[in-house]
Amino acid sequence: MEILENALRRIGGLDEEAMRAASARQDRLTKPRGSLGVLEDIAVRIAGITGDPRPSPGTKTVIVMAADHGVTSEGVSLYPPEVTGQMVANLLAGGAAINVLARHAGAEVRVVDVGVAVPLEGEGLISRKIMAGTANMAAGPAMSCEAAVAALEVGIEVAEAEIARGVRLLATGDMGIGNTTAASAITACITGLDAVEVTGRGTGMDDEGLERKAAVVRRALEVNSPDPADALDVLSRVGGLEIAGIAGVLLAAAAARRPVLVDGFISAAGALIAAGLHPGAADFMLASHLSVERGHAAILERLGLHPIIRANMRLGEGTGAALAFFLVEASLKILAEMATFEEAGVSGPE
Amino acid sequence: MEILENALRRIGGLDEEAMRAASARQDRLTKPRGSLGVLEDIAVRIAGITGDPRPSPGTKTVIVMAADHGVTSEGVSLYPPEVTGQMVANLLAGGAAINVLARHAGAEVRVVDVGVAVPLEGEGLISRKIMAGTANMAAGPAMSCEAAVAALEVGIEVAEAEIARGVRLLATGDMGIGNTTAASAITACITGLDAVEVTGRGTGMDDEGLERKAAVVRRALEVNSPDPADALDVLSRVGGLEIAGIAGVLLAAAAARRPVLVDGFISAAGALIAAGLHPGAADFMLASHLSVERGHAAILERLGLHPIIRANMRLGEGTGAALAFFLVEASLKILAEMATFEEAGVSGPE
Repeated sequence: MEILENALRRIGGLDEEAMRAASARQDRLTKPRGSLGVLEDIAVRIAGITGDPRPSPGTKTVIVMAADHGVTSEGVSLYPPEVTGQMVANLLAGGAAINVLARHAGAEVRVVDVGVAVPLEGEGLISRKIMAGTANMAAGPAMSCEAAVAALEVGIEVAEAEIARGVRLLATGDMGIGNTTAASAITACITGLDAVEVTGRGTGMDDEGLERKAAVVRRALEVNSPDPADALDVLSRVGGLEIAGIAGVLLAAAAARRPVLVDGFISAAGALIAAGLHPGAADFMLASHLSVERGHAAILERLGLHPIIRANMRLGEGTGAALAFFLVEASLKILAEMATFEEAGVSGPE
Repeated sequence: MEILENALRRIGGLDEEAMRAASARQDRLTKPRGSLGVLEDIAVRIAGITGDPRPSPGTKTVIVMAADHGVTSEGVSLYPPEVTGQMVANLLAGGAAINVLARHAGAEVRVVDVGVAVPLEGEGLISRKIMAGTANMAAGPAMSCEAAVAALEVGIEVAEAEIARGVRLLATGDMGIGNTTAASAITACITGLDAVEVTGRGTGMDDEGLERKAAVVRRALEVNSPDPADALDVLSRVGGLEIAGIAGVLLAAAAARRPVLVDGFISAAGALIAAGLHPGAADFMLASHLSVERGHAAILERLGLHPIIRANMRLGEGTGAALAFFLVEASLKILAEMATFEEAGVSGPE
């Protein structure tokens, strides 16, 4: 609990002065005011996050949290639960989508076993298993409050290690068969929306499967009646170990004033938890893409985050965040490298 | 006319067999079917464009067409017309937004003077001026049919030179004070929408300016009554020299079976012209972003193109296309580099 409390205590606000300086520079660059839209906003926000009015890009890491979900016994996924462990092996071997996209973006991938059901090993694996997957939340709490805190602290410690070695830009990712069901339950609970409105097809359920999945989400909320105002209660009763780990990464980034890209629906559920634990945490997050998963838009709206990419993606692993690295770096380069009207001898508006 | 006719004659259809092979591979990769959304679609389309079922990324160029517009005398822009020439100098010096973003994407920028009002020179400038800007389309035709064809052929020849030196992926960009007015007129004419529905604020007009601008678009259409079914007629009466150049680039890319990224509203107006000259040309285009400019969405819908980035941008120059290079390359790397279920020993759907 001390690691978590320490991280929460260190989260401050955005540096308004750095943001004003960055905004003022944006308006002197050779482009119509505001014409780079979100690209301008991102650079200004990163100025506020880092306290540097002209922040430079730097080393990037995607942290992929992997864990299993007892709720898979309710038939909520198209894939068998053993795929979680198999996909961790694929991630370690470099063959998964996130490996390809992170290589393309020049980012490292860290894979963390925070709760995969089967024993795992492999070069590069960060083994921080809290338990061998959650219990079935449709029948009782997914995990104890202690387990949730421990998983949160894994996320904090892994992110802190990355930051300590100089990483400037973080991103979150997930791997866990059944985790869209947990993310839907968290979203329904915290936003107050009906289970049906925030439950999607995950890996590709048909209509019947989707109906069953929404019913499982509703049952999990009835059985556990988590307190929407208590993020730790929500996380432990209807969450997941990888979602806890992601929330921990987001909190550590906020505490260290590092921008962090939130991937898709699962990562956004982690963001809901992080923002529930500290309302200021969302200021340090950047949304990457808008997932096909129904609950994702509801979370982003609640957190006031605006996704840049709309590519009908729904893969997770951090794939949307890895694509957005390029856009975030672009925003910083625009602020740092473009000529001003004065430098270029270009006339301003009449 | 011969260069144009030759390009039009060479435009064929997509290679269905290469697309089927690419699709089949997408479904064997270690991800739920379709879960990379537009990223999967792009790679499949590029397979169809190039005829290669596993196309590789390669050299990239943004071709920026610059020209002036006589319609600026109607007070349709916030910036004085001399900014076109000043910004060309900024582009050649490397200080414009497109320079920063193209460097970030690892792409080259080619700047073409196809009709800037003032004499221009500078290292790297491709001087192919057809005339010193168009005439005021609110009072008569913007240019002659011969001038429009000549500007189209400049675009074709510049793109062909890039392709001849090995460029695999092209993008279009524009520079021209007043060109959103011309793009709006083209869009209103070809889509049949009212001027108000396709006229936006350009570089940042206020409400009064926007109303004036829409009235100018309407007047240009009334004065010239271009034939919506005759793209060359539309282009010469209410178009622009850089829009013609862009249309030429798009036609040359289609003729040579090279994918080409269409930037924002101005480039999309060029795409409307290109597709009007040859209906098959749109198959070789990829939309990059959705601009704030009102008419952009109408064009993309008509051409069946789906933008990937939604970042509230409205700068032009090819900035949206330069950002999208990374996503297009990502789509090709996903197809080429991801492990299949079999290779990775991952179980498929149950």
